Amino acid sequence: MDDSSEEGGKKPTVDELLAKAKKPGEDALILHPFYQGKIEVTLKAPVRDFNDFAIWYTPGVAEPCRLIQREPEQVYTQTNKWNTIAVISDGTRVLGLGDIGPEAGLPVMEGKSLLFKYLGGVDAFPLCLATKDPDEIIQCTKWLEPSLGGINLEDISHPKCFYILDTLRKEMNIPVWHDDQQGTATISVAGTINSMKIVGKKLDEVLISMVGAGAANIATSRVLITAGVPIKNIIMSDSKGILEPGRKDIEERKDWFVDKWKMCVESNGEGRTGNVADAMKDTDLCIAASKPGPGTIKPEWVSAMATDPVIFPMANPVPEIWPWEAKEAGAVIIATGRSDFPNQVNNSLGFPGIFRGTLDVSARTITDEMCIAAAYEIAKTAEDHGIHKEYIVPTMDQWEVFPREATAVAMKAIEQGVARKKLSRQEIFERAEFIIGRARKQTEAMMANKDFIPPAPV
Amino acid sequence: MDDSSEEGGKKPTVDELLAKAKKPGEDALILHPFYQGKIEVTLKAPVRDFNDFAIWYTPGVAEPCRLIQREPEQVYTQTNKWNTIAVISDGTRVLGLGDIGPEAGLPVMEGKSLLFKYLGGVDAFPLCLATKDPDEIIQCTKWLEPSLGGINLEDISHPKCFYILDTLRKEMNIPVWHDDQQGTATISVAGTINSMKIVGKKLDEVLISMVGAGAANIATSRVLITAGVPIKNIIMSDSKGILEPGRKDIEERKDWFVDKWKMCVESNGEGRTGNVADAMKDTDLCIAASKPGPGTIKPEWVSAMATDPVIFPMANPVPEIWPWEAKEAGAVIIATGRSDFPNQVNNSLGFPGIFRGTLDVSARTITDEMCIAAAYEIAKTAEDHGIHKEYIVPTMDQWEVFPREATAVAMKAIEQGVARKKLSRQEIFERAEFIIGRARKQTEAMMANKDFIPPAPV
Repeated sequence: MDDSSEEGGKKPTVDELLAKAKKPGEDALILHPFYQGKIEVTLKAPVRDFNDFAIWYTPGVAEPCRLIQREPEQVYTQTNKWNTIAVISDGTRVLGLGDIGPEAGLPVMEGKSLLFKYLGGVDAFPLCLATKDPDEIIQCTKWLEPSLGGINLEDISHPKCFYILDTLRKEMNIPVWHDDQQGTATISVAGTINSMKIVGKKLDEVLISMVGAGAANIATSRVLITAGVPIKNIIMSDSKGILEPGRKDIEERKDWFVDKWKMCVESNGEGRTGNVADAMKDTDLCIAASKPGPGTIKPEWVSAMATDPVIFPMANPVPEIWPWEAKEAGAVIIATGRSDFPNQVNNSLGFPGIFRGTLDVSARTITDEMCIAAAYEIAKTAEDHGIHKEYIVPTMDQWEVFPREATAVAMKAIEQGVARKKLSRQEIFERAEFIIGRARKQTEAMMANKDFIPPAPV
Repeated sequence: MDDSSEEGGKKPTVDELLAKAKKPGEDALILHPFYQGKIEVTLKAPVRDFNDFAIWYTPGVAEPCRLIQREPEQVYTQTNKWNTIAVISDGTRVLGLGDIGPEAGLPVMEGKSLLFKYLGGVDAFPLCLATKDPDEIIQCTKWLEPSLGGINLEDISHPKCFYILDTLRKEMNIPVWHDDQQGTATISVAGTINSMKIVGKKLDEVLISMVGAGAANIATSRVLITAGVPIKNIIMSDSKGILEPGRKDIEERKDWFVDKWKMCVESNGEGRTGNVADAMKDTDLCIAASKPGPGTIKPEWVSAMATDPVIFPMANPVPEIWPWEAKEAGAVIIATGRSDFPNQVNNSLGFPGIFRGTLDVSARTITDEMCIAAAYEIAKTAEDHGIHKEYIVPTMDQWEVFPREATAVAMKAIEQGVARKKLSRQEIFERAEFIIGRARKQTEAMMANKDFIPPAPV
């Protein structure tokens, strides 16, 4: 991939790119009904003969039940709670498709569960809820706590996703994660760390423009700030212009847009007003998570950035600006969400390893500091392979990134006092490597028997 | 087993029996923390390389999502909804342990999920809820509908379990099952069918006493009646005596005890009053699901039954009367819930096959008639092996019972118009046999690799 894209991606035609982008969808329509589901439940305990049922079920199972009743924390050792999460969605903001409902969102949540297992060894099952009301989503999720070691919220529209996440993080004793917020933030920060290293700029000095003020960019700004970027050095814009104290439209809804209003008040030290062009001017880095391009960001706005500008146009399926246009306009590093350009800034590099580490120490929450630890470890993994302008984050097949992240995250959880279990760095790494490796080997073993996973027809 | 128990079970001492009963619990306390969970999530779709993620997840997955949005019933072919159920409990009546709470109930729900997969090929995951309020349990369960093909309620205390089950069956578009009600009823009716065959009595003529009026016996009476037993021929008793129209204590709570009050009014045609002894007198069959014995039912009460009396003392772990005592008192057929006596009337012979058939035609509900079809097929399976006084229902290793039941249940669902899919008898049987056989082979394959399911230390 690096060779063919040495020039920031050759210039395929838009038609070629769109045709290429259609192929996975065509295959998906054949393969989804062929497999009729992407995950299943299997036994992880043996059945040697029918007498084992007396151990796994009545009467023997009564003893572990009594033990948990006496010592509630034993639920983490007597059951699979320690490794089980739910992928919860109401289907109101599924991919770029909008509010398509919980049934139509299920293929995505099953896919997410597949990624959780294959990349992180996490047992995730999809729960699409028949309610869109934020308080009902909160209530339902809280009722599900006893069986679960964690919650992954997914594809819930904003602004309610902020309120849901913040409330659940406060009120639950297991980690709650909204991948569209914290997951995107983590990988964007990893990309930021390495790209600033390459252009020789420091996190506490750079000026950053952020195009779009939805779930992804709001969370990314918060994590960037925790990681050392001065809040005054961030200039964020939404469809109505730059965030600043005069934005009455946001102030009026500040109970729903807590962090966004905070950005109005505290970011943008220069007090800029205006549109995206005004926001981007003279900034070192532009992170865009707004509406699909091309043409959402114009080449001349890139040209007006600081020297050696870096741009992450992250909209899917078409970035806010094509990489070759950004490159011609002077950008030295360009990262997108697509796998067919260099520098894919992909959530899937984050959540599997972050949850692995979180679950392996039965952490009570996932703090922003744990996200930052993951971001630095993602960045470091790429650095160990030799970073350059077209390689700022690991690729998906460099899977050592997941146990490495898991270790960084778990160690941070222990350090911050949110871990229920304490293990050594070495123990955590080896355990994570074993669990993730096992999930891959298990999938291979299933694929080797056509009764288990038959060969794909396309 | 048949040989050693030719005399209705030799007479082990009570101490020997209790010691034997303790062994599974001792093993359970070693093996539960060894495996740390009895089920896990695995992939049922292949990952040939990382490009497959573009099919199972974004961007390709958008196409199946759009298809389901246009045609909602496609969720049954594009996802695993068709084979997925939740095992839902609030932990208020776990085994014989009572209200031990949702965390302490989790080992049981995981065990049930294990049985669902191993015996029925059903993907079940355990959800223990952090609420005991019946309306909240109903609300939570309804919100979970979009991802699920069915619901198995488990170990919820009565009388709220009646209200919860009845409400959910009315208000959900997927089958809702309470195994402690319908499951127990099904297998008890199967045992009744074959034991009446052996003693040469007819269902529409027999007089039946039922000791205990909890979830199990109330459901069993309803299914027996639907199967042809005249309601007037049933005499039911609870801890306060025989159910009859004068039972003010039940009338006062008849909104909660709908079926129980119906039994007061409509059953017991002779208008008996009194205690268990009065209820059992002259009856052909006694089904007890009351409090553990021994001594709950006295030998002289058995002696006072009709000629060739049959008794099912079903309490666990100790039956209401020891089988050898019942035999000495004149009982010709005795069935219990225990695996160490002949005639184990075990729910696990029912729910896996019933759900297999229900899910294979994506049925909207499980009717009492579907339960009766299952009961007749369970009875027929045993008959094909040659029924006798110590073999009235199949044993767990005669696993053809599950695809046979599945077929009977699915055909009945189609006949009653509650099936979403229509398949032939042959297709249903072969599909069920394949899916169940696959689950067993998959478990064997996992057990063959110590990284997947390591050998048990005891």
